[in-house]
Amino acid sequence: MLSFDEYKSLINKHLTDFIPETDCKAAVLRESMEYSLTIGGKRLRPVLLLAACDFAGGDIDQALPYACSLEYIHTYSLIHDDLPAMDNDDLRRGKPTNHKVYGDDIAILAGDGLLNTAAEVMTGEVIKYAGHPHLMERHARAAHEIMSRAGIRGMIGGQTADVKGEYMEADADLVKYIELHKTADLITAPVRAGLMLGGADDEMLEAFTSYALDTGVAFQILDDILDFEGDAELIGKEVGKDKDLGKCNYVCVHGLDAARAELHRLTSDAKASLSRYGSDADFFIELAGMLEIRKY
Amino acid sequence: MLSFDEYKSLINKHLTDFIPETDCKAAVLRESMEYSLTIGGKRLRPVLLLAACDFAGGDIDQALPYACSLEYIHTYSLIHDDLPAMDNDDLRRGKPTNHKVYGDDIAILAGDGLLNTAAEVMTGEVIKYAGHPHLMERHARAAHEIMSRAGIRGMIGGQTADVKGEYMEADADLVKYIELHKTADLITAPVRAGLMLGGADDEMLEAFTSYALDTGVAFQILDDILDFEGDAELIGKEVGKDKDLGKCNYVCVHGLDAARAELHRLTSDAKASLSRYGSDADFFIELAGMLEIRKY
Repeated sequence: MLSFDEYKSLINKHLTDFIPETDCKAAVLRESMEYSLTIGGKRLRPVLLLAACDFAGGDIDQALPYACSLEYIHTYSLIHDDLPAMDNDDLRRGKPTNHKVYGDDIAILAGDGLLNTAAEVMTGEVIKYAGHPHLMERHARAAHEIMSRAGIRGMIGGQTADVKGEYMEADADLVKYIELHKTADLITAPVRAGLMLGGADDEMLEAFTSYALDTGVAFQILDDILDFEGDAELIGKEVGKDKDLGKCNYVCVHGLDAARAELHRLTSDAKASLSRYGSDADFFIELAGMLEIRKY
Repeated sequence: MLSFDEYKSLINKHLTDFIPETDCKAAVLRESMEYSLTIGGKRLRPVLLLAACDFAGGDIDQALPYACSLEYIHTYSLIHDDLPAMDNDDLRRGKPTNHKVYGDDIAILAGDGLLNTAAEVMTGEVIKYAGHPHLMERHARAAHEIMSRAGIRGMIGGQTADVKGEYMEADADLVKYIELHKTADLITAPVRAGLMLGGADDEMLEAFTSYALDTGVAFQILDDILDFEGDAELIGKEVGKDKDLGKCNYVCVHGLDAARAELHRLTSDAKASLSRYGSDADFFIELAGMLEIRKY
């Protein structure tokens, strides 16, 4: 297995390779998509996909288009989320948001373009393995896993609850739903899709699903903590927005101390899910630890 | 083969069947998606998919999820296109547009949800044929065809040119690009995908691609004519919008008489593409004729 930074370099090197060529009449669309893809980012999700594929004994070259597609989906969700009609954010990763640069109309289309491109790339990959039914099935399962967790039972459902939560009483059930679907689903998708591409068995899928869901919920709780007490300059966007928007998050409902305790408990549980793999799973154990103490 | 109305009934009966179950916390998302799906529509695109599959000797039950997915994509594009940041339309098919009912935030998410659901449904279908490599390949090709023509080289590219055309000199090249990609690609996709599902050979694919591209461009030119001189009540939305928005369309660039002549020429060419199939292709020949004289 490679290090986080090595996987990340691979992603950054190839991130825009899979986007189809476009006519110059739609040049601004491509420019706007690439703007948001390349202004930075942790690349956590695509790295998880490559690492999971690697862990299961798969070929990370075959996984790269899926890893990049995952980042297209993550990026589209940020572009649409930042729109004036949604969270109305001017900054993302310390840079002007897509719609501040290209206008709301192109930002909507760039988001649509990134989501569509993800599905286009992945279905194109499935066809490439037409001569190898076993591989074709793995690829189709990975594509479906990603589209399902990104969809209305997954991330889009979570976003909806997040938006609607602004008009509702803060509620522990709603917070849990938002954490699981807005965030944890898009951290679980790459782990499961990577394992599927690598040919993992059900036992491995199950252990890593627990790991990913706990890590994903912990990730959202830390985001909530950082929105409450983080450093806007480090984070690269305004803080305190959740409170201003009346959003329903873990800190608002349970308080800061409980949030820190839950973050720690979830991180420990995530690590424990992989104990059967001993030091083979060090990459994932260390990653969970790093995510627990991140400042942005 | 069935009649247009018989295929259409099948679509209307099953249109929402393939949308995944969602939690009550995201109920408004599903409601908003279903609102736009069920307020009506010609169902031209999904009917074309079923008819093409039927023509090629395929099983239309297998094609139904793809036909519905096509309609999800068409509907998402209308929801996003109607947003204030885009064409700012209050009416669609004579009813309030999605964002007028659910707000801009939910309309954005409903559009995302429909596009994502299309990819989720189609990749899910591919997996179902895992034991039949030959069928799995056909299904993957159909899914990829639809995602490609809906994407940044296809419909989204055309939408971008349409939006940007508002700020540019009217130009015949740009008009052609918009017709081909904003409209004709999403009429060609179901024809080709349907044929692929039915196992058509390259010759049939080629003939029907010519038919579909000509029919699609003709469809857009008649939309331009109707926007210029149509009956708002029949059409179910405001007319004269293209001119108000300074949009670049066939009528603005070439005039009304040339538009009518081009509509007729394209319709004749479309029919001629299928001449080798004689009366077997009557469904498609008659459909092209009906589309040429439609009033909405």
